[in-house]
Amino acid sequence: MPVKVRIALDAMGGDFGPSVIVPGAAISLGRHPDAEFLLFGDSALIEKELAAHPALKKVSRVIHTDVAVSMHDKPSQALRRGRKVSSMWLAIEAVKKGEADVAVSAGNTGALMAMARFCLRTLPGIDRPAIAATWPTVRGDSVVLDLGATIGGDAAHLKALAVMGAAMASVLFDLERPTVGLLNIGVEEIKGGEEIREAAELLRAMQSPRFEFVGFVEGDGIGKGAADVIVSEGFSGNIALKAAEGTARQISEYLKAAMSRTWRSKIGYLFARDAFKALKDKMDPNKSNGGVFLGLNGIVVKSHGGTSADGFAYAVDVGYDMVRYDLLTKINQTLNREAGALVSTPTAQEAVS
Amino acid sequence: MPVKVRIALDAMGGDFGPSVIVPGAAISLGRHPDAEFLLFGDSALIEKELAAHPALKKVSRVIHTDVAVSMHDKPSQALRRGRKVSSMWLAIEAVKKGEADVAVSAGNTGALMAMARFCLRTLPGIDRPAIAATWPTVRGDSVVLDLGATIGGDAAHLKALAVMGAAMASVLFDLERPTVGLLNIGVEEIKGGEEIREAAELLRAMQSPRFEFVGFVEGDGIGKGAADVIVSEGFSGNIALKAAEGTARQISEYLKAAMSRTWRSKIGYLFARDAFKALKDKMDPNKSNGGVFLGLNGIVVKSHGGTSADGFAYAVDVGYDMVRYDLLTKINQTLNREAGALVSTPTAQEAVS
Repeated sequence: MPVKVRIALDAMGGDFGPSVIVPGAAISLGRHPDAEFLLFGDSALIEKELAAHPALKKVSRVIHTDVAVSMHDKPSQALRRGRKVSSMWLAIEAVKKGEADVAVSAGNTGALMAMARFCLRTLPGIDRPAIAATWPTVRGDSVVLDLGATIGGDAAHLKALAVMGAAMASVLFDLERPTVGLLNIGVEEIKGGEEIREAAELLRAMQSPRFEFVGFVEGDGIGKGAADVIVSEGFSGNIALKAAEGTARQISEYLKAAMSRTWRSKIGYLFARDAFKALKDKMDPNKSNGGVFLGLNGIVVKSHGGTSADGFAYAVDVGYDMVRYDLLTKINQTLNREAGALVSTPTAQEAVS
Repeated sequence: MPVKVRIALDAMGGDFGPSVIVPGAAISLGRHPDAEFLLFGDSALIEKELAAHPALKKVSRVIHTDVAVSMHDKPSQALRRGRKVSSMWLAIEAVKKGEADVAVSAGNTGALMAMARFCLRTLPGIDRPAIAATWPTVRGDSVVLDLGATIGGDAAHLKALAVMGAAMASVLFDLERPTVGLLNIGVEEIKGGEEIREAAELLRAMQSPRFEFVGFVEGDGIGKGAADVIVSEGFSGNIALKAAEGTARQISEYLKAAMSRTWRSKIGYLFARDAFKALKDKMDPNKSNGGVFLGLNGIVVKSHGGTSADGFAYAVDVGYDMVRYDLLTKINQTLNREAGALVSTPTAQEAVS
C-alpha cells in the first residue's frame, strides 16, 4: 500500500474545467490529508485556481497541455486527436507509468472509457470493462454495475462483473463477504434471458468465499437494498440508473410544487425545513458521483460532467478509497482463484445440481 | 362501436379474488354507466359480493367455474390445468367468441399472457405480443412498452411496438399524432445496440401520419415526458418500470421518516397535510394500474395482483377506454397501411439517407 495516495486529475474535464476540478480536489484533500495530486491541463488556468487553495497547491504538481477532449467528441475522435497529448490521456497514462495510483476525470464517458481501455488494457481474464457506482438504498449503499460500458454479454461476462463488483463493495463498504444479486425481470419469460440464468448457475457453483450469491433481483429490489452488489449488462444497468434518477428528480419537482401551492403548505415547509434539508441531502445525486471503471490494469474514476466542486470531491473520494483499500489486488485475487476454480468446474456444478 | 362495452372479468384473479374484483368493477361502472360485465369464477363467492352492489349486479352475468389459476402457476402449468376451464381462460375466450369486448384479470402475468396468446393469437404482421402501460410524467402520462412480454427483439419488433404504442396513446390521450421515442443509453456504445439504431431508421423512414418519431430517449427522459410513447424491448422496459417504482417507494419512506422525526417537522406536516395528500395522489401507483396486452386479436388488460378495489377499477377503466375508442381498429389500420408501405420501403429510405 502506498504511503501517499497519488491522484491524477484531468483538470480540463467536465462542463467547467479547472474552476470545479481544483476546488473539488481541495475539498477531498481536506478529508484525506495523505493524498497528493497530478493536475493535467492548461497550467495558467490551473495555477489561477490553485492560488486560492494553498494546501492543495503544496501537494500538487501541474503538467501543462494545450489539448483537451471536448464533452462532445466521439471516442474515435477523442483517441485520434487526444492520444498522448490530451489532459485526459495524460492522467490515465500517469497510472500506467506508475506515477499515479488512480485517474479521475469529469470528461465524456465514451472518450474516457476508450482511452482507459486503449492505454491500460483489460485485466487477464477480463474481456470487457464495466462502469460501477454506488446506489443509495433504504438499507445503505449498494454497488451497481455495469452502467453502460458494455452492451449485452454472456454468462461469463456477468460472472466477471459479479467478481469485480463484489471486490468493489468489500472495499467501499468494508464487508468481508458482500451479497451479490443478478438483475432480472419477474415476469415469466417467454423467450430469452438464458445468459442470466446460466450466470446464476455459474455464480452458485463458485461458492466464493469473497461474496454470497443471493439470486435474482428485480428492478424495484435495487432501492430496497436486496443485495450489496447488483449485476447487469450495461444497457439495462444504465436504463435502471437513469430511470431511478429521473424518478427522483420528478418527485422533487412534485414536492417543491406541492409545498409552495398554498399558504398552509408554505408554513408547513418553514416548520419542516430541517426535515426537507435532511431529505435533500439523502437524495443528493452528488453523493453517488464517481463511476469506477473496472476490469482494467489500473483504476479510473469518472465524475459527472455537470457536477459541482462538492460533487467532484466525492468522485475523488471514491478514487482515494479504491487505492487505499486496494481494489485492484482484491479483484485480481478473486480472478486468480477463479482461474484455478474453472478447472474444477464440473465438480462444482455437480455440487449444486 | 358497440352500444355497450362488454367487459369479461377473471373474478378469481389477484391476491384477493372476488372481494376486490367485484367492488372494483362497481367503482368503474359508476364512471362508465354503459359498461356491462361477465364475471367468471366461483359463483357463490361472486354472488355474495354482488349482493352489496345492486347496480353492478343488474348489468352482470355470472358464469361459474371451479378452476382458478394460482398466482404461482407457471405459464405451462396454467395452460395445462386451466385451459378451457379456468376463470382466466374463460374470460379471454369470451373475447374470442365475441361475447365480450375486453378481458381484465389480476391473475399472474405469465399465465395470462400465455393463455391470451394461445387463445387469441397474434395479429397479422405481429410476431410477438407486448405489455404496455401508462407512466406518469411531469408533462402528463406517457405509454411505455414493452414491460416484459418479450425479451429482446430485432428492429422490426421495435417498429411494431412503436406502431401499437402510438395507437394506444392516441386512444388514451386523444392525440392525433403522438410522439414516439426509442429507449436507449446515452453512453457512447462500444458494442451492440444495432437493432435500436436500425429501428430508428425504420421509424424515420415510415414518416407515419399516425405518430411522430422523435429519436432516442434515455432512462431519465421517460419521467420528463420526452415522448408520448416510449418503446423498448421487454427486459429493459421492465427494469425501467420497476426501478422507477422502487425509487418512488424509497423516497416516500424517506419522506415519511423525515416528517416524523422532530416536533417541528411534525407540525410542518400538519400544516402541509393537503399538499402531502396531493403529492400522494400524484404518486399513487393505482392510477397507473392496467397493463394492456398488445398485438393480439382481442384486448386483454392485466391488473396488479395485489391491488385494491380502487386500483382494479383503474384497470377496468383502461379496458373500457381501449374498447370505446377502438384500439384494435387503430392498430390494424396502421399495420395495414404499413403492409403497403413496406413495398415502397426503398424509396422511403432514400428519402432520409
